[in-house]
Amino acid sequence: MSRRHSPEETKIALHGVVEEMYKRMMKGEPPTMTLPVRSKTNIGFDKKYGVFKYGKKKTIRDATSLGSAKQLLRALHVVEFIEEMIDAGKSSTLREMYYISEAWGLGHFNSQNESNNLAEDLEIVTKCLREDFKLRPEEDGARIIGNVTINELNRRGEWMRINARDDVGDSGYGLPYNVENEKIQFLEHDVKFIMAIETGGMFDRLVENGFDEEWDCALLHLKGQPARSTRRFLKRMNEEWDLPVVVFLDGDPWSFRIYASIAYGAIKTAHISEYLATPSAAYIGITPDDILAYDLPSDDLSKNDIQALKAELTDPRFADGMWQDRINLMLEMGVKSEQQSLAKYGLDYVTDTYLPEKMAEAGL
Amino acid sequence: MSRRHSPEETKIALHGVVEEMYKRMMKGEPPTMTLPVRSKTNIGFDKKYGVFKYGKKKTIRDATSLGSAKQLLRALHVVEFIEEMIDAGKSSTLREMYYISEAWGLGHFNSQNESNNLAEDLEIVTKCLREDFKLRPEEDGARIIGNVTINELNRRGEWMRINARDDVGDSGYGLPYNVENEKIQFLEHDVKFIMAIETGGMFDRLVENGFDEEWDCALLHLKGQPARSTRRFLKRMNEEWDLPVVVFLDGDPWSFRIYASIAYGAIKTAHISEYLATPSAAYIGITPDDILAYDLPSDDLSKNDIQALKAELTDPRFADGMWQDRINLMLEMGVKSEQQSLAKYGLDYVTDTYLPEKMAEAGL
Repeated sequence: MSRRHSPEETKIALHGVVEEMYKRMMKGEPPTMTLPVRSKTNIGFDKKYGVFKYGKKKTIRDATSLGSAKQLLRALHVVEFIEEMIDAGKSSTLREMYYISEAWGLGHFNSQNESNNLAEDLEIVTKCLREDFKLRPEEDGARIIGNVTINELNRRGEWMRINARDDVGDSGYGLPYNVENEKIQFLEHDVKFIMAIETGGMFDRLVENGFDEEWDCALLHLKGQPARSTRRFLKRMNEEWDLPVVVFLDGDPWSFRIYASIAYGAIKTAHISEYLATPSAAYIGITPDDILAYDLPSDDLSKNDIQALKAELTDPRFADGMWQDRINLMLEMGVKSEQQSLAKYGLDYVTDTYLPEKMAEAGL
Repeated sequence: MSRRHSPEETKIALHGVVEEMYKRMMKGEPPTMTLPVRSKTNIGFDKKYGVFKYGKKKTIRDATSLGSAKQLLRALHVVEFIEEMIDAGKSSTLREMYYISEAWGLGHFNSQNESNNLAEDLEIVTKCLREDFKLRPEEDGARIIGNVTINELNRRGEWMRINARDDVGDSGYGLPYNVENEKIQFLEHDVKFIMAIETGGMFDRLVENGFDEEWDCALLHLKGQPARSTRRFLKRMNEEWDLPVVVFLDGDPWSFRIYASIAYGAIKTAHISEYLATPSAAYIGITPDDILAYDLPSDDLSKNDIQALKAELTDPRFADGMWQDRINLMLEMGVKSEQQSLAKYGLDYVTDTYLPEKMAEAGL
């Protein structure tokens, strides 16, 4: 299911975008670019991959209004910029591309959001990946600790064999922004599952309590909403090593979204959900039930939280009855809790009591 | 200048706090805790260390009001909690301590801020460090790439020799939260200086452009406002290896504060500035002058930005004429710029032109 393209293939795919516009103009017609609607109203379950992908609703961008014409002009500038980077062996952050557009006159971006979206648009149209375009995010990758061994091609062009337990300091192995096969290879492991954790404090707690050694697992710190590279890394471990993934998050509407992006696919990247999502990832908690059952310290839901929960009720990824119940229960309770609130019962409670109970409940 | 205390010494120092309260109560007097005023109105330059430290203004917390009495009660609970951790060989995040306080009845914390401040108060009173208390922050440490070799005592009790160029992946060596001598030893290096960088995007840019190899330097990603461990790590490299530190930040009021915390000492940690601050650290930019001289893309100052700049004008750390001019110039211009805005001139401009010019200007 590879969508990866060589530099030459990427250039050809990008030229296709330009060619389509050129041909229409030569016929005296306004150039166009056709894209799927990229919102929750247009995602649906893909049975083949078990993830959520864009549906059939399309938007057509054509150069009959000034705004759309500028968007197409930007796309052409970006195509040129990517081609220059490929030729020069360079890469760029999305933020740098935003600033580079300053020199594009009428084609310059008005916001970072615009340039991020355009990079994704081009992925959709060309079927390439952002990595092929040499564009990378600002955000940091995650870190992992555990007995898993990978090969990383470093910037000096040497393959380095790194064991994420024996060859790293206590901060673990930091994921690079490109975790595709030309950069990262998965060599071997001796773990039974991967636990993905939302906060650094809880990650450090499980490390200090030796949870990974007692349970033969690897621990991965998601750093909040996980970057693409983090989701892809999880997916590859799940697929190539057939390892179960267990997800342990805060108990709030944003954590539900984190889980959805890991297991079902994120809305913004629904065109590549089959690359990024791990359908079998199990959600451990903190569930709204847990807040009651374990009598956890909690905070009132903010207006933003309530809005997010209500939006989730109509999100196809949460259409399942269990999720509807969870979301409605949280709305009813009016509170949320953090993973670290388990410390109310002492520093060992999470590893001695909570996680063993929840893992047993989930049949793990 | 070691303030580090063994577990036994730490307990004795903490008992001193309790003893003082106990003795006053035995005399029929309300217990007290005396602390320096911890704001910019009470920091002054310390000639011996070349950093800013708390001055002579004191606040006395006594148990004659309910609020102060609760603060003293909290201090006693925290002393007990720290002693338990020392005995159990555990550590805890500040967030966990906040939640653990749920069980302290009247002594529980009302906000995370309260518990963070109390940890610092106890550092001041006992002359211990937070590391002695086994308390650690939630925030991540920074990462470093370059030809520097350190020894890290990992959690299995083994010393690991790690070269931050040859033994790590592209994400570099991640700093643990404790970088004191019992955990990190500085072995050897082959660099001429350290460059500390605010944003991940710019760090990756300098790595990709090979700036560290061309200039024989190590690159350190600060991750925004640097954690204590990051400032301490810089300080130790500066002191133990006699390496110059060069600081490269965004051009906004918050970056000025980052520089001040690195070079002069942060207000919240002014009791240990001589541990954390590197007085010789050189500020490279982005300066307000640069925004004009390099005609950089900029954003309007927000209300918050303007407020921060005005507060800096009366901050003793910025009393110097050069800083007053810089701050006033930014207020006058009404704009700020990011480091990555240099990409306006292409991806190599920062390493080919901007940094060489600024380094020469600074005599580096």
